Amino acid sequence: MANKYDVIIVGAGFAGLSAGLALKEKGLNTCILEARGRVGGRTETKWLDKDMQIDLGGQWIGPTQDRMYELVEKYNVKIFPTQLFGKEKYYYFNEIHDQVPPEMMTMFDVIDDLAKKVNLEAPQKSPDINYQDRVTFDAWLHTQIDDEEVIEFLGRILAGGLLSSDAGEVSLFQVLYYIASGQGTEILLGSKGGAQQDRIVGGPQALASKMAEDYGSELKLNQVVRTVRKMDQSYFVETENGNCYETKFVLMALPPSVLNSKITFIPELPTMKKKMLQNILPGSASKYHAVYDKPFWRKQGLSGQFNLSQGWIMESIDNSNENREEGIITFFVYGVDSIKLNELPEEKRKQLLINELVKVYGEQAREPKYFLTQDWNEETFTNGCFTGHFAPCGFLKYGAIIREEVGGIHWAGTETATIWNGYFEGAVRSGEREAEKIIKKNELLSMKNM
Amino acid sequence: MANKYDVIIVGAGFAGLSAGLALKEKGLNTCILEARGRVGGRTETKWLDKDMQIDLGGQWIGPTQDRMYELVEKYNVKIFPTQLFGKEKYYYFNEIHDQVPPEMMTMFDVIDDLAKKVNLEAPQKSPDINYQDRVTFDAWLHTQIDDEEVIEFLGRILAGGLLSSDAGEVSLFQVLYYIASGQGTEILLGSKGGAQQDRIVGGPQALASKMAEDYGSELKLNQVVRTVRKMDQSYFVETENGNCYETKFVLMALPPSVLNSKITFIPELPTMKKKMLQNILPGSASKYHAVYDKPFWRKQGLSGQFNLSQGWIMESIDNSNENREEGIITFFVYGVDSIKLNELPEEKRKQLLINELVKVYGEQAREPKYFLTQDWNEETFTNGCFTGHFAPCGFLKYGAIIREEVGGIHWAGTETATIWNGYFEGAVRSGEREAEKIIKKNELLSMKNM
Repeated sequence: MANKYDVIIVGAGFAGLSAGLALKEKGLNTCILEARGRVGGRTETKWLDKDMQIDLGGQWIGPTQDRMYELVEKYNVKIFPTQLFGKEKYYYFNEIHDQVPPEMMTMFDVIDDLAKKVNLEAPQKSPDINYQDRVTFDAWLHTQIDDEEVIEFLGRILAGGLLSSDAGEVSLFQVLYYIASGQGTEILLGSKGGAQQDRIVGGPQALASKMAEDYGSELKLNQVVRTVRKMDQSYFVETENGNCYETKFVLMALPPSVLNSKITFIPELPTMKKKMLQNILPGSASKYHAVYDKPFWRKQGLSGQFNLSQGWIMESIDNSNENREEGIITFFVYGVDSIKLNELPEEKRKQLLINELVKVYGEQAREPKYFLTQDWNEETFTNGCFTGHFAPCGFLKYGAIIREEVGGIHWAGTETATIWNGYFEGAVRSGEREAEKIIKKNELLSMKNM
Repeated sequence: MANKYDVIIVGAGFAGLSAGLALKEKGLNTCILEARGRVGGRTETKWLDKDMQIDLGGQWIGPTQDRMYELVEKYNVKIFPTQLFGKEKYYYFNEIHDQVPPEMMTMFDVIDDLAKKVNLEAPQKSPDINYQDRVTFDAWLHTQIDDEEVIEFLGRILAGGLLSSDAGEVSLFQVLYYIASGQGTEILLGSKGGAQQDRIVGGPQALASKMAEDYGSELKLNQVVRTVRKMDQSYFVETENGNCYETKFVLMALPPSVLNSKITFIPELPTMKKKMLQNILPGSASKYHAVYDKPFWRKQGLSGQFNLSQGWIMESIDNSNENREEGIITFFVYGVDSIKLNELPEEKRKQLLINELVKVYGEQAREPKYFLTQDWNEETFTNGCFTGHFAPCGFLKYGAIIREEVGGIHWAGTETATIWNGYFEGAVRSGEREAEKIIKKNELLSMKNM
């Protein structure tokens, strides 16, 4: 006999946990099935030593991410500011600058203005989507600016830094949607006052763990869901290790590409939904950490925050911990470059990257004490970071059905969010959004059965 | 105990059947597992009456598709020419014309010239791929021409008619690759002397059936492969209904998106291969057939071959049978339009389409005797037609590993072909290509074991 629940939630990342808590609070009988041996989804924290955490996955929160700050307070986890002890710098035209090129400043304004016209709830109804979703961000930049290096730089900062993709992979509309959902480029790209303002002690995974603890024993780890079978009015959720759970509602709270490649629905999902899920491709971000004895860059007046217009490294940030002497530079490679770099042998890869660090930080960057990376592409239950993006035309084709449930099957996850899409905040809100829908539906069901 | 084979082939379309026959000829012990209850993959023939076949899927062959003509001869199936009794027509600028606009003729030449530079074997080494794979075909057309209707028309004919996608979904490079592999736009778009020259009596499925018969009893239908598990030097191929086959080599001969969503590999595929498979998205073609008492358009001097620059219908063709009085107009809707149209109720959809037929063929088109369609998007073991395309940047990222085997796992299917990619011919050649590789590897294995 299958265990019976009102709702089975698949995935114990921020979306799944938020949904579980919201549903539990209303008295619904729920269960969360998580494929991994831990909660937290696309976050993982490694401790190199006491007080020295390395956030291998998602890590920052910032202003207007209200639900995340509320959770931080509710669960009494500590936060600390991103370490900023100097000036942000930009490497372009083969030189180090204090500002991005003026053409870029203008373009940020142009893009923010375009983003304001995006209809977040019904993207397919946005005024210029027919053009904007059919042009890659890279190709569109070529229609706006002449300087190839500025075009490249803009693509790297916006398609790379935001969507962990190449500017040639995503449509202009995808970039605009993401920017609109994240309140504009200034907040999205910023540290103090922006999306990279604060860190969580123990990483967001520490917060996720507290949420899981609060949720309680009906969270089951190492449960790889393989099949969702509908029979009569019930769904039967079957796991790889042979467990079967019966439920009225299923909430899918995992990345679309994992969902698409790992879970079989019987009967099949409607064609549109299936195709929609196929069309959301995971980003490719490689995140590296170079740990040094001291944050030597601070003496040079540098914040550690750097953007590069060329080369493998797209951006770096000071990721040191408070109250520790060591300095940590965390840096990113995105999109096509991330894929190409992963093909190289490890030692060669490290050498190329260190050389680029030396270019901006000087010879002191040559010998890090530790050099770490985490390849989320390889994680079978994640399939790539930070977030998914539609292939061009995806919003045009599937914009209307992103959040549409299929019978009792609901869809959460940051990729479905309208506010802070791609962030923890979006994940939390998406989980709570679906919880609310399910609560209403369940009330109707209960009334019918009275 | 598992049954033991040298090679298990997954999929009995043209790639799988060709591979099976080539391997069997060399004395290898092989087995083909097919998910459906029939062979032939993306082809299906419906008989409305004796001698009146309706090809619901792939149907044409043409010059330079040498392997297909050899198979037709070997298996003694009959072919007949596409019915052409009048002039091809083009509907644009709100009028019917005998020729495409002159700007389009120029662009065909420009595109053919660009296609000549494509490196089919190593696409990632093509000279201009860094630009060409990062711009959608639609956006690139906007850099070449001013007239919006001409741009739209070109996108529909090339991205639509060839790749069953919207010009905003595919990169310029994807279009060029396809054109290069199919010997240029003139052959690809043509009927007599081109890719739509001949039809097969009973459809290509009749040919596939004869190939299957020749192959023999080791072709097993209704075997849905779910898991490919490697243990020691063997692979164990497990089906949904609990069968297990042991083999030295596995040949995957099914569409990439089906492969990606249906089959679990243990251990997992290398990350690059997995991401590559995710990045090949199935096209969206809807194929409709309107059957009339007579081919009335011939009296108007029309061939039935029409291209439209606007509206749902992208192109039509006379698909009547030889020696039958009825006339059949077959027409196509592609890409975003195909998805949007499928969302409409059936009766409304039919009305919109018939209205468009009336626009070009007159009131006689108003009342077809039969009106048929086949939605390949809904077919779970096909997932969309005609063929798959890379999302933009896909060739840049994964061009080097399209055909790269993973241990004893090989990859066939028309999406892997360098010649006639996307066609039956490409499928056949891909199957024979991998058969040859496996034969060589198997010889080496045998020598080692002597």
